[in-house]
Amino acid sequence: MEQDDFFKRDPFAQYIGAELLEVREGYAKARLLVDDRLVNGIGVCQGGALFTLADLTFAAAVNSHGQLSLTTNSNITYIRAVPKGYLYAEAHELVNHHRLPYGEVKLTDEAGRLCAVFSSSAYRKDSKY
Amino acid sequence: MEQDDFFKRDPFAQYIGAELLEVREGYAKARLLVDDRLVNGIGVCQGGALFTLADLTFAAAVNSHGQLSLTTNSNITYIRAVPKGYLYAEAHELVNHHRLPYGEVKLTDEAGRLCAVFSSSAYRKDSKY
Amino acid sequence: MEQDDFFKRDPFAQYIGAELLEVREGYAKARLLVDDRLVNGIGVCQGGALFTLADLTFAAAVNSHGQLSLTTNSNITYIRAVPKGYLYAEAHELVNHHRLPYGEVKLTDEAGRLCAVFSSSAYRKDSKY
Amino acid sequence: MEQDDFFKRDPFAQYIGAELLEVREGYAKARLLVDDRLVNGIGVCQGGALFTLADLTFAAAVNSHGQLSLTTNSNITYIRAVPKGYLYAEAHELVNHHRLPYGEVKLTDEAGRLCAVFSSSAYRKDSKY
Repeated sequence: MEQDDFFKRDPFAQYIGAELLEVREGYAKARLLVDDRLVNGIGVCQGGALFTLADLTFAAAVNSHGQLSLTTNSNITYIRAVPKGYLYAEAHELVNHHRLPYGEVKLTDEAGRLCAVFSSSAYRKDSKY
Repeated sequence: MEQDDFFKRDPFAQYIGAELLEVREGYAKARLLVDDRLVNGIGVCQGGALFTLADLTFAAAVNSHGQLSLTTNSNITYIRAVPKGYLYAEAHELVNHHRLPYGEVKLTDEAGRLCAVFSSSAYRKDSKY
Repeated sequence: MEQDDFFKRDPFAQYIGAELLEVREGYAKARLLVDDRLVNGIGVCQGGALFTLADLTFAAAVNSHGQLSLTTNSNITYIRAVPKGYLYAEAHELVNHHRLPYGEVKLTDEAGRLCAVFSSSAYRKDSKY
Repeated sequence: MEQDDFFKRDPFAQYIGAELLEVREGYAKARLLVDDRLVNGIGVCQGGALFTLADLTFAAAVNSHGQLSLTTNSNITYIRAVPKGYLYAEAHELVNHHRLPYGEVKLTDEAGRLCAVFSSSAYRKDSKY
């Protein structure tokens, strides 16, 4: 599967500017440029924009095997405010179950500091991605 | 506090088009028009856009008392795909704790069907909102 | 299905003393006597004992239709310490999906005060409960 | 702090038989013998017993600095059924924040297989543990 396939097919990913940097079986890495459009009322990356990058990166990782996998439940813990600049996400699929995969995503800022942790479950369908 | 105050101060809320419809002590209601910009690769509302509306509505509810409250942890369960059209969010602050408030948000589509449930904890600071 | 069936088949439920009070389609109510065995180092109900009652009550509710449903993911937020005495749990199945049910449980103490909220997803198998 | 201090002060930990094996700054390891008392209706470790071991081990890790830290929110994803025998838990405090620590716990069976993942936030008080 082409490396940038997943994000380029997703209009919202394009609208916020998320870029898929790397994807392989059970893994994905992406980034998002946090600028004036994506900040909240106190000038840091809005929590939903952060969550969206994590969600997209997780989806790229769990769909990496070619089987359509839809997110069912996600959890995010915010650790450090994300300033303007690049935000990075790295997703690892910890459980490659035929029906119920599970993965985690770490979000870091340009300085490499951990800003949030995200975990998610998905439901794997019989159809292809 | 003015009803539309919270969302209008938030650039990302403006960028996606989220509208705060009502807010009072411990409660907020909002909506988001899901259109071509906010859908995912299969044509329904992208999970992060849905989460963002829930997150903003929760934030409006917990900040309704005037004390700055920052989200620390959120959880979302997706129940039904959201088609293009309006998505509604209603947030209730179940625990109005001086330090650790907690609330839940129900997301429904134009037909009134439950599409997702969101819950979140926040940390209340000493500063004013 | 007999009202007390689910908890009486569960050894751990018996070991901690959890009692199923009521069950019907998509709903269950139970209680647990918090005594010297179930408290933590500061003398209030240990978080895991609280979680266990919620988990059992949720399981009773989602298995109420007769289809074996196994819990996949649960979330709990602690609101108020639970003193010795009875702890009550009420579970509502908000999504009766043929594969992915979802429910919430409210935990209250003898005085009726909300002590914790629990939410959970399950996976429904083809086999009967 | 003495290695077995935290679990031995906790009556419920003693009642289920949880043993703290190791603890140091921001880290703890423990185990639980899953026997006839701790299984559920289908003969594997009951979810609440599993959660309790994770919760206790997380608490030991976050309280390792000597500051009283109370769990506020926890999330658990079940991956594989735990058979009778030893269940192991390893907790890592990923965020040693003065007020809002966060950590994760991996649960494995005797064969070293990943059975569940647990994450949790806590609130750090001014008092000593």
